[in-house]
Amino acid sequence: MAHWSEYLDSEYDRFLNEYFDFVRIPSVSALPEHADDVRKAGEWVVDRLKAAGVEHVELMETGGHPVVYGDWLHAGPDKPTIMIYGHFDVQPADPLDLWDTPPFEPTVRDGRVYARGASDDKGGMVTPIFATEAHLKTTGKLPLNVKYCFEGQEEIGSPNLETFFDTHQEKFKCDIVITSDGLMHDADTPMILLGLKGLTGLQINVTGPSSDLHSGLHGGVMQNPIEALTKIVASLRHADGTIAVEGFFDEVIDPTPAIRKKTAEIPFDEAAYQQSVGVQEFFGEPGYTTRERNWLRPTLELNGIWGGFQGDGTKTVLPSKAHAKITCRLVANQDPPTIYKLLEAHILKHAPPGVTVEVEPTAGTGYPYLMAADHPGNKIAADVMHELFGKPPVEVYVGGSIPIVAFFKNSLNSDTVNFGWSCGDENLHAPNEFFRLENFKRGMRGYCMLLEGMVEYKE
Amino acid sequence: MAHWSEYLDSEYDRFLNEYFDFVRIPSVSALPEHADDVRKAGEWVVDRLKAAGVEHVELMETGGHPVVYGDWLHAGPDKPTIMIYGHFDVQPADPLDLWDTPPFEPTVRDGRVYARGASDDKGGMVTPIFATEAHLKTTGKLPLNVKYCFEGQEEIGSPNLETFFDTHQEKFKCDIVITSDGLMHDADTPMILLGLKGLTGLQINVTGPSSDLHSGLHGGVMQNPIEALTKIVASLRHADGTIAVEGFFDEVIDPTPAIRKKTAEIPFDEAAYQQSVGVQEFFGEPGYTTRERNWLRPTLELNGIWGGFQGDGTKTVLPSKAHAKITCRLVANQDPPTIYKLLEAHILKHAPPGVTVEVEPTAGTGYPYLMAADHPGNKIAADVMHELFGKPPVEVYVGGSIPIVAFFKNSLNSDTVNFGWSCGDENLHAPNEFFRLENFKRGMRGYCMLLEGMVEYKE
Repeated sequence: MAHWSEYLDSEYDRFLNEYFDFVRIPSVSALPEHADDVRKAGEWVVDRLKAAGVEHVELMETGGHPVVYGDWLHAGPDKPTIMIYGHFDVQPADPLDLWDTPPFEPTVRDGRVYARGASDDKGGMVTPIFATEAHLKTTGKLPLNVKYCFEGQEEIGSPNLETFFDTHQEKFKCDIVITSDGLMHDADTPMILLGLKGLTGLQINVTGPSSDLHSGLHGGVMQNPIEALTKIVASLRHADGTIAVEGFFDEVIDPTPAIRKKTAEIPFDEAAYQQSVGVQEFFGEPGYTTRERNWLRPTLELNGIWGGFQGDGTKTVLPSKAHAKITCRLVANQDPPTIYKLLEAHILKHAPPGVTVEVEPTAGTGYPYLMAADHPGNKIAADVMHELFGKPPVEVYVGGSIPIVAFFKNSLNSDTVNFGWSCGDENLHAPNEFFRLENFKRGMRGYCMLLEGMVEYKE
Repeated sequence: MAHWSEYLDSEYDRFLNEYFDFVRIPSVSALPEHADDVRKAGEWVVDRLKAAGVEHVELMETGGHPVVYGDWLHAGPDKPTIMIYGHFDVQPADPLDLWDTPPFEPTVRDGRVYARGASDDKGGMVTPIFATEAHLKTTGKLPLNVKYCFEGQEEIGSPNLETFFDTHQEKFKCDIVITSDGLMHDADTPMILLGLKGLTGLQINVTGPSSDLHSGLHGGVMQNPIEALTKIVASLRHADGTIAVEGFFDEVIDPTPAIRKKTAEIPFDEAAYQQSVGVQEFFGEPGYTTRERNWLRPTLELNGIWGGFQGDGTKTVLPSKAHAKITCRLVANQDPPTIYKLLEAHILKHAPPGVTVEVEPTAGTGYPYLMAADHPGNKIAADVMHELFGKPPVEVYVGGSIPIVAFFKNSLNSDTVNFGWSCGDENLHAPNEFFRLENFKRGMRGYCMLLEGMVEYKE
């Protein structure tokens, strides 16, 4: 019988074509008119898992876009059970006119596949499926017990899945989760992900007079809602860059000297980064480096503000309303609902007289996530990556959020290992998304190796 | 020979129809496609002045919309020379779907003429022309020397007229200006106008990163331009309501106890006003009443603010830019260009680190204007009003601005008497503008009486 490595080589063209078929399904979860396509993509995954030899495959209802489950559990109770995660929904493709080739027609140029979802996450999530097939077709078995969980609502924040996993804890129970929806440090450098930010968000609505007024006939006598809003927003941060919301930092786990040292050791060309974002100077919480501020510290960002006249020239209006949107990225152990309440209390406390101030939630709640570098799952993954890429992975935190990882922790009590192949430069969520075919190949090999390596997993 | 009073009665229907013809010309000065209509309205005024018996009538070029000049100067050098002012351009009519009848087809309902410009200022400016005709056709002369000045760019801030009057000082020289573009206190109460606000305006443009960024991947490390803008705007006013711009009040003439006493005596239902604008409480400069804050004190109002995401839900963007628009209403003797520079200096001084802040002018410069209640022009006008309406006018200041009045003061050294018939409730600048026919009638009589009364004018 052939080795899985030979199988991957001999079946490569077929796998590539199957991956292309998968990408052709416009499974945009954000757009109701594509709900059927999301389901169709889920059905494609069901069929593909079955063809690979996975058992008990089913499309499960969630109240929203479906989840695909499957398993292969014949390795015996002394072997660990891992769960492989990914998602088959994609971001909207617009603006369409900025795509060089149609977003749902995968096109290969210079060793890259261009298409919406090519990288995030269809390219990533097929690699464990093809790896599973390679093992099963060459040896008739897997080295350990594996569950498969692919979802269709990641790009809209997985709104139904917290309840879903709470309801199906036994079915999805596992020793550890491996996510194919993950990032590399760069195109040739693998990455172990140690921390993800949580998320909470809100909108401030300030109302002054009941309608827009003439600023001459009514000026000077009432609180201007735009000005009131600026006073509230300005109060959220001290001049030195520290977030001023009372209690905001109470539950923050400050980064240890060891973590800060490791973070500092990861190469970072700060001058090049500054040039790429085009700011004159960086600004943020005192006492932390630029990278620490983004990776290790909670943040508060204004995402939008509006009110009154926005056209050319002048309209001497005293507006009725003004609004602002804010999101905070949170770190362990900040609790998103608690932080929301602290923000709300601060905003209402700083509301000037003469206006009505309301606060409403806007973002889904995302919990922060922290995983030790020496976690046994990370150590095995790091060893596989080292062998696969010829160099060890860098261990990083990110400023972004992946809510599902916290659901796995909270509902299933399982940690999640980053084991994906997307790169930050691959236009994820943007026109001309692409995936590197070299990493598609590496990814299949990597999963074949990980299925073997994880046999040693012990909590 | 008949008295002008009988002439006004006998010719009333013709005057009404002529006024309607005038209103039918869509002389919207703000819209380039209506430039010919503005000129057509000017030509209508030329013809109408000639028909009334006014001499030396001409359409004068200004570099923008034209000015109509005419005079009748045969009363002799011992008689005063007054100049009657008005404007034949109108505001745009949109939104058209909110009009009950077409904006440029005058329609009479319940003693009111509905049309764009019916009140502001076509209805006002024809009354002195018809009054002039009544005098000239019945007596062959006017009681005093009169110049006529009607312009076509009032609704866009008369951008060419400061230069125009500086160039034609001798031609427009007069002892006093009477403006038909004026307001009544209410539909039955005349008004003497003692003060107008000046105006200066600017836009603040704040730029952070060179493009919108992902708030997770880039949050916490740079100054957020929205937040920077809120810090700048919030710094413009102290918490107690006083404008905080350094030097802002240096040239302000504080209202005298006599003016404050008079202002307090004018009936004002503050509770009803509060209910009409729908605010919980008033707010403004400490030490002044609501009416004083609007009429007698300079104001600073935020007219608009915008930046980043304004849609439903969340977009976790760290935006590149944020903007705000501000106008200040100024009182004597604040100098608008000086105040602009003080604002600019304050804004740049309060710009936080890490963003680029620019300030650009948006509004035309309007100078504040102040006229004593016992000014001889006001006294004569008040006497006429008292006789015409059976009660004395109220003497008020307004929070709004009429830049031309300051041009007359600066270029011609002439004060301006408010002698117009528009009411604040007549939807000026809004859909369904109307003019009260009763005040159209009163207005013609009033101008006939004023031409007689102003004979006694002495500076």
